[in-house]
Amino acid sequence: MKIAFIGLGAMGYPMARHVARDYDVTVWNRTQKTAEKHAEEHGTRLAASLEACAGNEVVLTILPTSLVVDEIVDRLLPKMGKGALWIDCTSGDPVAARKTAARLADADIGFVDAPVSGGIPGAQAGTLTVMVGGTSENYERAGEVLETFGSRIVHVGESGAGDAVKAANNAMMGANMWMAAECLVTLKKLGINLESALEVLNSGSGRSFASESLIPSRILKGEWPLMFKLALHDKDIRIASSMAQAANASTPMLSLTAQLYTTALADLGDQADYVEVMKYAAKMNAEEW
Amino acid sequence: MKIAFIGLGAMGYPMARHVARDYDVTVWNRTQKTAEKHAEEHGTRLAASLEACAGNEVVLTILPTSLVVDEIVDRLLPKMGKGALWIDCTSGDPVAARKTAARLADADIGFVDAPVSGGIPGAQAGTLTVMVGGTSENYERAGEVLETFGSRIVHVGESGAGDAVKAANNAMMGANMWMAAECLVTLKKLGINLESALEVLNSGSGRSFASESLIPSRILKGEWPLMFKLALHDKDIRIASSMAQAANASTPMLSLTAQLYTTALADLGDQADYVEVMKYAAKMNAEEW
Amino acid sequence: MKIAFIGLGAMGYPMARHVARDYDVTVWNRTQKTAEKHAEEHGTRLAASLEACAGNEVVLTILPTSLVVDEIVDRLLPKMGKGALWIDCTSGDPVAARKTAARLADADIGFVDAPVSGGIPGAQAGTLTVMVGGTSENYERAGEVLETFGSRIVHVGESGAGDAVKAANNAMMGANMWMAAECLVTLKKLGINLESALEVLNSGSGRSFASESLIPSRILKGEWPLMFKLALHDKDIRIASSMAQAANASTPMLSLTAQLYTTALADLGDQADYVEVMKYAAKMNAEEW
Amino acid sequence: MKIAFIGLGAMGYPMARHVARDYDVTVWNRTQKTAEKHAEEHGTRLAASLEACAGNEVVLTILPTSLVVDEIVDRLLPKMGKGALWIDCTSGDPVAARKTAARLADADIGFVDAPVSGGIPGAQAGTLTVMVGGTSENYERAGEVLETFGSRIVHVGESGAGDAVKAANNAMMGANMWMAAECLVTLKKLGINLESALEVLNSGSGRSFASESLIPSRILKGEWPLMFKLALHDKDIRIASSMAQAANASTPMLSLTAQLYTTALADLGDQADYVEVMKYAAKMNAEEW
Repeated sequence: MKIAFIGLGAMGYPMARHVARDYDVTVWNRTQKTAEKHAEEHGTRLAASLEACAGNEVVLTILPTSLVVDEIVDRLLPKMGKGALWIDCTSGDPVAARKTAARLADADIGFVDAPVSGGIPGAQAGTLTVMVGGTSENYERAGEVLETFGSRIVHVGESGAGDAVKAANNAMMGANMWMAAECLVTLKKLGINLESALEVLNSGSGRSFASESLIPSRILKGEWPLMFKLALHDKDIRIASSMAQAANASTPMLSLTAQLYTTALADLGDQADYVEVMKYAAKMNAEEW
Repeated sequence: MKIAFIGLGAMGYPMARHVARDYDVTVWNRTQKTAEKHAEEHGTRLAASLEACAGNEVVLTILPTSLVVDEIVDRLLPKMGKGALWIDCTSGDPVAARKTAARLADADIGFVDAPVSGGIPGAQAGTLTVMVGGTSENYERAGEVLETFGSRIVHVGESGAGDAVKAANNAMMGANMWMAAECLVTLKKLGINLESALEVLNSGSGRSFASESLIPSRILKGEWPLMFKLALHDKDIRIASSMAQAANASTPMLSLTAQLYTTALADLGDQADYVEVMKYAAKMNAEEW
Repeated sequence: MKIAFIGLGAMGYPMARHVARDYDVTVWNRTQKTAEKHAEEHGTRLAASLEACAGNEVVLTILPTSLVVDEIVDRLLPKMGKGALWIDCTSGDPVAARKTAARLADADIGFVDAPVSGGIPGAQAGTLTVMVGGTSENYERAGEVLETFGSRIVHVGESGAGDAVKAANNAMMGANMWMAAECLVTLKKLGINLESALEVLNSGSGRSFASESLIPSRILKGEWPLMFKLALHDKDIRIASSMAQAANASTPMLSLTAQLYTTALADLGDQADYVEVMKYAAKMNAEEW
Repeated sequence: MKIAFIGLGAMGYPMARHVARDYDVTVWNRTQKTAEKHAEEHGTRLAASLEACAGNEVVLTILPTSLVVDEIVDRLLPKMGKGALWIDCTSGDPVAARKTAARLADADIGFVDAPVSGGIPGAQAGTLTVMVGGTSENYERAGEVLETFGSRIVHVGESGAGDAVKAANNAMMGANMWMAAECLVTLKKLGINLESALEVLNSGSGRSFASESLIPSRILKGEWPLMFKLALHDKDIRIASSMAQAANASTPMLSLTAQLYTTALADLGDQADYVEVMKYAAKMNAEEW
């Protein structure tokens, strides 16, 4: 089976390598150098043009936003054959995903939204979790491709459901991290040793992925590497907040989380890492870690 | 060494058993029947009266609130000898703990606030985490007693620090659980299968102790056992919020958490379990699990 | 000039009467009886059908939501002549208004969003404030019609700006009322006489339209008449919150207001008056007024 | 009747002048120069020392915080005669006021908390509103003094009630102003003319004292005079939030208001005027007025 893989970012690059072990993969990337490097290193084909990707049986995208996906759909759709399948691994907007699915269905092309979690290590190891939204038929078809880089592939619902669960996951992580930051800065103000406090919290019921895997190295060692842009995390949280709004849900904590992240982003800027919101929570208290 | 153990609730009962393996333990409990049962089952002595507990070298309390502790301090203090040590395992208020410590110090009696985490299973297995606030000297003295029921004893700071960290832990747990409830109810409104969603979230970065250990059995199996009273959890969160306020901290999410729990408590009532706030978050959305 | 007036609700009915004093007015209403009554009482013409309204030089709508307006645009647009003007007095969504304006502009038809404030008394007296969004040209054209029922006609910006300002106004009112409710219920819990407290607050800097004009009669006299449906007020606040979200704004208080109203609506139901959120704020505290 | 007037700040200075028209007034101020100036300009006596004020039948204080009041009570109480009356016009903490009242009552000295509203203009004109907490007897006794500078004297409840209502008033004002700031910055982002928007909002139901009397000159003319320190306004809002907490009230909006003000204060600094929180709300959105 021939697959076009579009988007060779920090996640897409290693994911495409896994797909290429089992399939005939053509790669395309906005910065062409990266695509050339991938072709050379991993034996993938270089797409002659973005439009040339339309000739494959499967198109797989992993891009910054649903908007970028839709622009690419605009350009490929006129040239795609009936029966093709579009797998979108972007952390996208469920509303956009439903529209894209409908548009492709009209042309007899399948679509699944299939965002991933597990970060760069998971992408490299091929052990990502993939949450899939779409019809059962499309989920089945996508499965064998997704298994090349995912160790847990879960069908969570109809089109958009994958994106919805991903947005919820990232919003939960964002809230858990922010809450930990508020509590830790309060303990700091009270003169409590944060290393001891974290040891206790992380063996207690207050623990979360954020408090165990992200926070200790940042505030104890002062290392703030850029792992995932705050601007993208903020986008995911706003997707969650906006899908709650569209569902007429009452979600005060999700909503506050979205506001706090947007405020932090305005202060920290576009190049900040997502864990740097910890710094902003400290600054709100005239403190530093 | 002779120890008076005051407070044989769901946590205190098994903790006193562990202490009694290594020490000469006298027990007292508001409901005397429970103390009689403990004496019979575990070979502890029955206190002749509450005041009679004052004659021991160590007094250990684990009670609902700091207020109850202070009432007992009022009654025992006049009869306690210099050089005694008071170990308070209550999930108390750090401000109250500092005052109690100062009051006892005036009478040459040591004090540590030493709340525990690990729940009833940890109390039974003797594997609790204990967070200790107090001077290094008192921490050292308390250590050998705390080791009878704790597998991790951490000195987090001066008097009140143990209570502060415990309050922070419970507030973080409360926020993580509430946020998960909001996100899950939104996914439910969107028609997404919650079992699949939880599988993904709990293998993703949104996971927390709450989402892994508490939520699945409740919303997937409909089991809502009374494990820990919401009224007590609410008290802990309010302690956290009030210590943040006393520290002049800016903590919007902690503060919202406190408000939401108090609102839920007003609706669910005094006998509700703490995980039942999930039901209230659903009710806010005209939904049920 | 011939004008079709569509929507004879509590506001539209008296507004149409003012327009009819100066213009040749045809009326249409979903419940036809109301239109018949208006024609009889105020000498307006009864529209033969909704589509027949398309023949007028000006179409004026005042309806529950932008969605309803758009359905009517769908039906009238094919039959409307170039150069016509559509005046929409609905409290609508600015995003929808911009789209409708663009759609009508393509057919050489002008559009202004022109929501009103001043309530039923203002509509009856013809002293409404009208906030207008649209081009200067369309604003000028609409002016003479709007002056028949408005005493203050303000051009606030391009298409959608009228709706945006109206949504902001209603959200501010909603927040001011809710905040007053929280403070008053706290004072009540402290045993303070609310009549005296309101007297002071309303001569102090904490006063607002809500605290002066709406709250006293409700909580002091226990009168809760249905003046304006909470469901509509909630819709307006959600429009405000969603336009803030679309503008990527950080607005924690607006956002909390939207959540609280939605929660209150889920509890109070579709037929509740908007001031009844006061009751819900009391219920959150296990109190009643 | 002889009255000691303690605290000649921006409010106290003109208030003492009104009292001195009807009574024999001795003044004391931390910065003695101000007291000397008052004595010279308004014929008041200069206190020989703070303690010397204890000899008067009435002591009137208007100071930054309840803490400062209590320090002065500590110094005067031992020398005060039975039957004296203490009138405290400080915007104080209701909990502190209740304690002070009890302490003075033990020495047969009356106490009322009697904070004022109406700002510097009201203090100069002698048209302040005074909200009084205390027994009916003490309220009656204080009345004739309060009438020298107040045009509306309201007995709102027992000791602490005056402070509670004042805190509620300032918190409501703070919330109304913040909400207006959020809505206006959103409208600004949408390109809407703020002068027109304010004209409409201030003739609509969204209006409040804040939107009518404070905001227009600041954001339309760019004038940000120091009228009342944000640090003091923040203190008042925190008093409100902490009395709600003590009453076990559920008040999410009050609580968020307190958090936002504290955050703004950390950024704007101790010398900022209270209306400058508008600037901070803009900064949270990467905007300026």
